[in-house]
Amino acid sequence: TPESAERTAVPGVATGLAVTGVGGDVLFVEASLADPETGSTGVALTGQLGDVMKESAHIALSYLRSHGAELELPVGDLKDRGVHVHVPAGAVPKDGPSAGVTMTTALASLLSGRPVRSDVAMTGEVSLTGRVLPIGGVKQKLLAAHRAGITTVLLPKRNEPDLDDVPASVREQLEVHLVGDVREVLDIALQPVTAPVLSA
Amino acid sequence: TPESAERTAVPGVATGLAVTGVGGDVLFVEASLADPETGSTGVALTGQLGDVMKESAHIALSYLRSHGAELELPVGDLKDRGVHVHVPAGAVPKDGPSAGVTMTTALASLLSGRPVRSDVAMTGEVSLTGRVLPIGGVKQKLLAAHRAGITTVLLPKRNEPDLDDVPASVREQLEVHLVGDVREVLDIALQPVTAPVLSA
Amino acid sequence: TPESAERTAVPGVATGLAVTGVGGDVLFVEASLADPETGSTGVALTGQLGDVMKESAHIALSYLRSHGAELELPVGDLKDRGVHVHVPAGAVPKDGPSAGVTMTTALASLLSGRPVRSDVAMTGEVSLTGRVLPIGGVKQKLLAAHRAGITTVLLPKRNEPDLDDVPASVREQLEVHLVGDVREVLDIALQPVTAPVLSA
Amino acid sequence: TPESAERTAVPGVATGLAVTGVGGDVLFVEASLADPETGSTGVALTGQLGDVMKESAHIALSYLRSHGAELELPVGDLKDRGVHVHVPAGAVPKDGPSAGVTMTTALASLLSGRPVRSDVAMTGEVSLTGRVLPIGGVKQKLLAAHRAGITTVLLPKRNEPDLDDVPASVREQLEVHLVGDVREVLDIALQPVTAPVLSA
Amino acid sequence: TPESAERTAVPGVATGLAVTGVGGDVLFVEASLADPETGSTGVALTGQLGDVMKESAHIALSYLRSHGAELELPVGDLKDRGVHVHVPAGAVPKDGPSAGVTMTTALASLLSGRPVRSDVAMTGEVSLTGRVLPIGGVKQKLLAAHRAGITTVLLPKRNEPDLDDVPASVREQLEVHLVGDVREVLDIALQPVTAPVLSA
Amino acid sequence: TPESAERTAVPGVATGLAVTGVGGDVLFVEASLADPETGSTGVALTGQLGDVMKESAHIALSYLRSHGAELELPVGDLKDRGVHVHVPAGAVPKDGPSAGVTMTTALASLLSGRPVRSDVAMTGEVSLTGRVLPIGGVKQKLLAAHRAGITTVLLPKRNEPDLDDVPASVREQLEVHLVGDVREVLDIALQPVTAPVLSA
Ligand SMILES: [Ca+2]
Ligand SMILES: [Ca+2]
Ligand SMILES: [Ca+2]
Ligand SMILES: [Ca+2]
Ligand SMILES: [Ca+2]
Ligand SMILES: [Ca+2]
Ligand SMILES: [Ca+2]
Ligand SMILES: [Ca+2]
Ligand SMILES: [Ca+2]
Ligand SMILES: [Ca+2]
Ligand SMILES: [Ca+2]
Ligand SMILES: [Ca+2]
Repeated sequence: TPESAERTAVPGVATGLAVTGVGGDVLFVEASLADPETGSTGVALTGQLGDVMKESAHIALSYLRSHGAELELPVGDLKDRGVHVHVPAGAVPKDGPSAGVTMTTALASLLSGRPVRSDVAMTGEVSLTGRVLPIGGVKQKLLAAHRAGITTVLLPKRNEPDLDDVPASVREQLEVHLVGDVREVLDIALQPVTAPVLSA
Repeated sequence: TPESAERTAVPGVATGLAVTGVGGDVLFVEASLADPETGSTGVALTGQLGDVMKESAHIALSYLRSHGAELELPVGDLKDRGVHVHVPAGAVPKDGPSAGVTMTTALASLLSGRPVRSDVAMTGEVSLTGRVLPIGGVKQKLLAAHRAGITTVLLPKRNEPDLDDVPASVREQLEVHLVGDVREVLDIALQPVTAPVLSA
Repeated sequence: TPESAERTAVPGVATGLAVTGVGGDVLFVEASLADPETGSTGVALTGQLGDVMKESAHIALSYLRSHGAELELPVGDLKDRGVHVHVPAGAVPKDGPSAGVTMTTALASLLSGRPVRSDVAMTGEVSLTGRVLPIGGVKQKLLAAHRAGITTVLLPKRNEPDLDDVPASVREQLEVHLVGDVREVLDIALQPVTAPVLSA
Repeated sequence: TPESAERTAVPGVATGLAVTGVGGDVLFVEASLADPETGSTGVALTGQLGDVMKESAHIALSYLRSHGAELELPVGDLKDRGVHVHVPAGAVPKDGPSAGVTMTTALASLLSGRPVRSDVAMTGEVSLTGRVLPIGGVKQKLLAAHRAGITTVLLPKRNEPDLDDVPASVREQLEVHLVGDVREVLDIALQPVTAPVLSA
Repeated sequence: TPESAERTAVPGVATGLAVTGVGGDVLFVEASLADPETGSTGVALTGQLGDVMKESAHIALSYLRSHGAELELPVGDLKDRGVHVHVPAGAVPKDGPSAGVTMTTALASLLSGRPVRSDVAMTGEVSLTGRVLPIGGVKQKLLAAHRAGITTVLLPKRNEPDLDDVPASVREQLEVHLVGDVREVLDIALQPVTAPVLSA
Repeated sequence: TPESAERTAVPGVATGLAVTGVGGDVLFVEASLADPETGSTGVALTGQLGDVMKESAHIALSYLRSHGAELELPVGDLKDRGVHVHVPAGAVPKDGPSAGVTMTTALASLLSGRPVRSDVAMTGEVSLTGRVLPIGGVKQKLLAAHRAGITTVLLPKRNEPDLDDVPASVREQLEVHLVGDVREVLDIALQPVTAPVLSA
């Protein structure tokens, strides 16, 4: 789809799925790392995120900080470079744990320099050990993904029964991967490094 | 049980028992340590924990920080590695002191690299000197443990009278250990190191 | 216009457009960097800014911290010099994400020593990757810009349909640039360095 | 008494007296110092302590920090080792200044390695210069001490008149020391070091 | 006047003008710098200042931190010396942006060692670039200045129209300077250094 | 008087005067400095102090930090030693600016090792430049001082008219000093160093 293609063209951006008051919607999680020469450190979280969603970001970061070597990510970059996770639109309040996989993917993309596939959207809570836990709103989220031109959706394994609720016409046009561990998410969603990354 | 087996397969996860509005439930306490090269330090507590439960985590950490040498745990690891304790599900508020032993066990498992036995669940407040203090909801907690396929339960010694309230059919299928000191908990619950730990 | 000319005469000041309860208005975003010998560090945000507007300032800063080298800005200056972003008038509460481009421009002007064109006003949310996202109040903002003697307005590309609402008499006297990336904003709004900058 | 004997078996625990809504009660103040190799510093206060009781802990610490050399306590240990003061039970809110002497004694016991006598309970506000100031609830507190098998009680000198209110049968079985300075408390309550202290 | 003469006898004190519920009043802004050997750093603001007035103090400081070299002020003194800005009386809440010029002047006086003229009072918001922005209550402020024996008043240029409201009898006895930049304020209000400054 | 004699026997304690709901009262301001080997730094304020009273303590400290050399006080001691100011009784809320002179005197006594005269009580707001500003409740405060056996009272010069309200019988038995600068307070209230100070 044009929008997710534009938004995920650079490493550090992943496409998530959310439930709003009036249906589902696509959202983009953006992550950045400050250049070390700016002296910036710490973690900034913006986008009017609620408490549970802020905790999701901290879980995603701790997962990468403790599993980064195993995932072959240069987690040493987190030492001297401030991390910022933002979820536009800036004025819309957001909450809930289901952006956990999306935040983990955006951060892993940023660290690895591997862009996220623009045809992929995802939803799922992440635990500190990387397990993907079930979320709500599967039907609305898949309808929203389809509307936005997404063709591949990553869903928690324990949400499999909820797929029955999705209209067959939509279900048929989506490739759905049921995942139990965030490593499966990263395997599917991250593309190879395609070009030298001059700045992040 | 399949779930606690999967969840406790890695060091740093312990199975606890909680009382909810409608009975008892099994919960998992997850702990992680950041790789030192990430520069992360400090303590993060997530899972929508209330004040008393956050204090339990600090008591567990202080117990290990002051008794670690005696317990032969490499507490020096706490110096340069950020600690994160998380209790899924991320959106469910939790409170109370009775996860004290579970938090202590998850952290001791993480530091030692010894996984927690997947057939064991536990409940109990911990004091700063390691004493196990009594808790509420023994009946509901044991019923929940049994439902979840747990076969061994660790309970505070001072809760012994509450065992009378547990149906005999359930009581007979559970091995209950009454404990007065958290060292007894660690002796029973932690398994030997079985494999090289590549990442924590 | 006399006022924006006076206000933007030094690097670090950009002209924005805001919606008030009774129409639109021009506002000025001012940025300063402490002299390194003062030992001041960190970020100060003043002008009775609401939560969303404070987040906009942090997004602007993170954008420059991660893209500064690419934009050929001396972002190392941010290391040892406290940043202050202020939006007069000091007693008037302000909020919303639409000053994002103005804040980014004021900071880029300050770092580069290039003053902002005094005939240019701008409005637009900025994302962490530099995308310019749509805002509200286009009609009121353009009327206010025109009233204030502004001749060039920078607007988010996705706000193009809202230009239909602007009276033709005003629309004809304004040069409107529709922008999708904050790099286009900086290309249009920043003037060459014209004189040695003795202090910032 | 069995309970205070068990609780005060290690240095760092002192027996206090409190007033609850329905009479008096014995409470235990526990103190710990982190092993220096954990890198932990600062002060943690837990047990759902109210503002006044937290201030009491800070007064106790400041008293020891400024009078430690005179008292021959190794206050240098406070430099590189995080202090934690906890008052079980973890879920019961507690407040008031009357645990001041108990907190000072627990901390002095911890620093000196001298256990607190298990037959002694105490109550009294402490000032920054070590003066013991009067408290309320003398009758209820002495009845509670007696019920708990305590045989020696330390009371502020200015509470002497309140002893008239204690039933003679109880009063006769308690050895009451009236104290004006916290040094008298430490002289009476701390035992000699009896064994090598392996961990604190 | 006797009071402003006594109050402004030392560098670091400037006379401001305020509006109260029942008219205008003279107020004194006091600034101090800690001796470097005290190890004190940071900024303290006291006098029951409201949010807007605290922001004014931070704007004044940032203005000096970024323009200090140009103004020939020894801003390096701010590095190792804690700054304190106080506005007596200590128990009276104060707010608003109009003390901006007074705070800037008190701090510039302190840094330069040049006392503020005791016959001068001032009012005006300051922006981060040093522009003097208009304020309210001109009539009440000038009446209060006159009552207090002040003979010279500094007013924002954009408040010129408000001078029409001041009774001619008062207006004639006051020398009013209309200022657009805080540099004009400092030029008029600061006296030469008259004696060695032993302490600040 | 016996009480103020006992309380002010060590350097760091000064006798103040307060107004309560039911008349006046004597209060004691206690100050302590941590031994440098404890590693404690910073400022602690206890005694359930309100916002204005906390600000008074910060003003007293800043006054000493900036005027300490002139007053021949060893302000370098403030660098590596935590300061604690406490006002018993611990559970009684206190507020207002009139303990400013008492706090300044207690801290100057502590730094100099000179005890405060036990026959002297004082009241007065202090400004950052050391001026003594007027306070309320003169009549009640002098009656309380007299009741407590105090024979010398220090009062702000601008409170002179309020002495008319004090009964002649009390007024005659008190030596009242009217002071305009806190240096006069220190000259009158501090005694010579009489003995080696082993601990502070
Ligand atoms: Ca279904
Ligand atoms: Ca870069
Ligand atoms: Ca029972
Ligand atoms: Ca690792
Ligand atoms: Ca339209
Ligand atoms: Ca400069
Ligand atoms: Ca009595
Ligand atoms: Ca140890
Ligand atoms: Ca007019
Ligand atoms: Ca000095
Ligand atoms: Ca009178
Ligand atoms: Ca000492």
